[in-house]
Amino acid sequence: MDLQGRRVLITQADAFMGPALCEVFAEQGAEVIASTDDPSPADAMAGIVGAAGEFDTLVANLAIAAPTTPALDVGDDEWRRVFAMLVDPLPRLVRAAVPGMIARGGGRILVIGSASALRGIRRASTYSAARGAQLAYVQAVGVELASQGIRINAIAQNFVDNPTYFPPQVQHDPRFRQRLAREVPLGRLVSAREQAHLAAYLCSDAADCFVGQVFPLCGGWVQR
Amino acid sequence: MDLQGRRVLITQADAFMGPALCEVFAEQGAEVIASTDDPSPADAMAGIVGAAGEFDTLVANLAIAAPTTPALDVGDDEWRRVFAMLVDPLPRLVRAAVPGMIARGGGRILVIGSASALRGIRRASTYSAARGAQLAYVQAVGVELASQGIRINAIAQNFVDNPTYFPPQVQHDPRFRQRLAREVPLGRLVSAREQAHLAAYLCSDAADCFVGQVFPLCGGWVQR
Amino acid sequence: MDLQGRRVLITQADAFMGPALCEVFAEQGAEVIASTDDPSPADAMAGIVGAAGEFDTLVANLAIAAPTTPALDVGDDEWRRVFAMLVDPLPRLVRAAVPGMIARGGGRILVIGSASALRGIRRASTYSAARGAQLAYVQAVGVELASQGIRINAIAQNFVDNPTYFPPQVQHDPRFRQRLAREVPLGRLVSAREQAHLAAYLCSDAADCFVGQVFPLCGGWVQR
Amino acid sequence: MDLQGRRVLITQADAFMGPALCEVFAEQGAEVIASTDDPSPADAMAGIVGAAGEFDTLVANLAIAAPTTPALDVGDDEWRRVFAMLVDPLPRLVRAAVPGMIARGGGRILVIGSASALRGIRRASTYSAARGAQLAYVQAVGVELASQGIRINAIAQNFVDNPTYFPPQVQHDPRFRQRLAREVPLGRLVSAREQAHLAAYLCSDAADCFVGQVFPLCGGWVQR
Repeated sequence: MDLQGRRVLITQADAFMGPALCEVFAEQGAEVIASTDDPSPADAMAGIVGAAGEFDTLVANLAIAAPTTPALDVGDDEWRRVFAMLVDPLPRLVRAAVPGMIARGGGRILVIGSASALRGIRRASTYSAARGAQLAYVQAVGVELASQGIRINAIAQNFVDNPTYFPPQVQHDPRFRQRLAREVPLGRLVSAREQAHLAAYLCSDAADCFVGQVFPLCGGWVQR
Repeated sequence: MDLQGRRVLITQADAFMGPALCEVFAEQGAEVIASTDDPSPADAMAGIVGAAGEFDTLVANLAIAAPTTPALDVGDDEWRRVFAMLVDPLPRLVRAAVPGMIARGGGRILVIGSASALRGIRRASTYSAARGAQLAYVQAVGVELASQGIRINAIAQNFVDNPTYFPPQVQHDPRFRQRLAREVPLGRLVSAREQAHLAAYLCSDAADCFVGQVFPLCGGWVQR
Repeated sequence: MDLQGRRVLITQADAFMGPALCEVFAEQGAEVIASTDDPSPADAMAGIVGAAGEFDTLVANLAIAAPTTPALDVGDDEWRRVFAMLVDPLPRLVRAAVPGMIARGGGRILVIGSASALRGIRRASTYSAARGAQLAYVQAVGVELASQGIRINAIAQNFVDNPTYFPPQVQHDPRFRQRLAREVPLGRLVSAREQAHLAAYLCSDAADCFVGQVFPLCGGWVQR
Repeated sequence: MDLQGRRVLITQADAFMGPALCEVFAEQGAEVIASTDDPSPADAMAGIVGAAGEFDTLVANLAIAAPTTPALDVGDDEWRRVFAMLVDPLPRLVRAAVPGMIARGGGRILVIGSASALRGIRRASTYSAARGAQLAYVQAVGVELASQGIRINAIAQNFVDNPTYFPPQVQHDPRFRQRLAREVPLGRLVSAREQAHLAAYLCSDAADCFVGQVFPLCGGWVQR
């Protein structure tokens, strides 16, 4: 997990897994560039990457409060808003960041995705669709850029402790705790630090062998 | 595969799998409503569904010539155009078609998707991402609407004979034939009628047991 | 699903999915050879195949009451007994049946497997392991024999109505019904006839395009 | 990846991934108990575990030279021999090792499995089937033992550098190098140390969140 000498750009560093990622990556020796800019405007990723200077690792930590709209009520606004935040930034960040990485001999991109793209969840259709786009994108670009020394992989998480999706009021809700016991073989949320350690491992030199791979992280809710 | 007495709306009926689907569904006894309208404008699906009258089955046959842009060159225009055609229509067709289906006791939606969302392909990042959104959407909505008698499933195909993705000039290219022999255990393209028979089966009463499921159809290129 | 003119050997025809398969395959026009011999002795499959005469389709309907032994208590006897019934017959039936199929121009083998190999279940370790061997075997042999006109595929089922795994006393147990409502998005067992119709489709000419593929059939309990 | 203070039993420590695992685990601070006993006799695992004293981590590194027998020629002897080596030891090692682990507050088991169970390979039916049994077993037992503090997971590898499956004469064969370039997006073998680092990570405290999960490691040959 050693990230000594590495410069890592983390997007939305104040949301979702951002705080835990910044903390653990710094502990592992990385110099962290913590962007808190909104990644959704069309030119945002170019700006974020441009401001970051040279870096060898990019963690696409894209997050939005997941709508819980019933499928029959999902409107174009919600759909556009979620895709604008989670999906549309991906090709822009690849375009902005990868040429420099290739010029410097290689690089790593890790997308913090969701297991909601691997197993259906009620009232999560917009969010699941956007997360599905992310994973398929990673698989395709991972294969395409492998020969140029770029490693792009994804974590597909669910039931990971973070303030965006599991705020304290949710965690203390007895119905949530019952659901956790029933649906998650682990019997607890995955901790934010466990998530960040997986992310650190996947960004380290030791993990240079993965190509466009999706790593479920959800306490056994899905196993493959 | 019996579709006797069924009214089936097929979108983009003149493209992708449309012609084969229309032919085989009619052979199986269905009354086919073959829409050839462009499904991408914001109000198109409402119009297509409104014009179709009552129907119990909808085949979302959404297609676009797949761009082969290298990942580093994919621009916002391509991205938007592909998502507008393949992804954005999905919640609109569910919103437009499903309330009537529920009122009439149930219905079926089959999305003709792509295995490019299951296994990475070079120079197909935009297309793969959009197809990934489709599959994850089907899984989520399939689970959500199951209790209301709506069955929504998807085919994830590749190497299926159709004029949109495998026109004659591609099929006659010796390099393509070598690729087929090397990558596709079946050793040939899946025929359009084989695809349409799977679609017919999945839309028939016999298949009322599938919930948000993704069926790979690609001659063994992926197996699960 | 037309099976007119086909001769189909079904093993353990009086157990598991056997009765439903015999009924539906005959309805679809097949001549069914219903073997009720124990398939587990070393020479059983050779004998069953030899006694069946020429046939073009083989349904490997291998069943055993699933032990519910805790993982820590599983002994060699249970392990051997379950593998002898579910796993060891597979290479023997391929050896016995396939050369004749190839000589006659091709053939189909369908293995009635289990989704317990796709998602972990408590107190089902022996059974899951044996079912996992089946699915991986089908994938490998499916790819290997495709070029010789042999199609071998598998259904990976769970929550399908059958007397071996879901006898009436289980189905009437309120705890089982709660589990069904909670874990199976379909909200009911898949019917035996639905299962047999999938099997008939997969054995028909229309499905000649599948190569070593695993088809989950479990009411949405797994989706891929 | 810190394994300080951990006692790790590694089976068949002189074969397959054994040498690399011993080296890397020791580097990470573990006390390694390197068993070189044949794990296939019925009482072998009890003996190996008994001789090891107390340990908290077990790496089931089970290996056998993979037969390349065509599916039609696979005999009972090959089948039995491979299952006796790769599959039958698993419930025995769980029975022998886990009660002590539970008594000491928890433990970890990592099975070094194969991606041949995830994607079909020609002339590998026996081996694939045995490896499929391993993965399904891990998924089931992983879920079952999670609540008792036991973490059991598996690596599903292929195209990893090791003397058992990729000896120098294979690696220098130009046809093998072509196959690697064509089938493995990574464009090279995964190194033995990369494999051992994944294993070390999965056995560390940081990875206490995984339950019966299968981690493909094959340079992109399969991605999920």
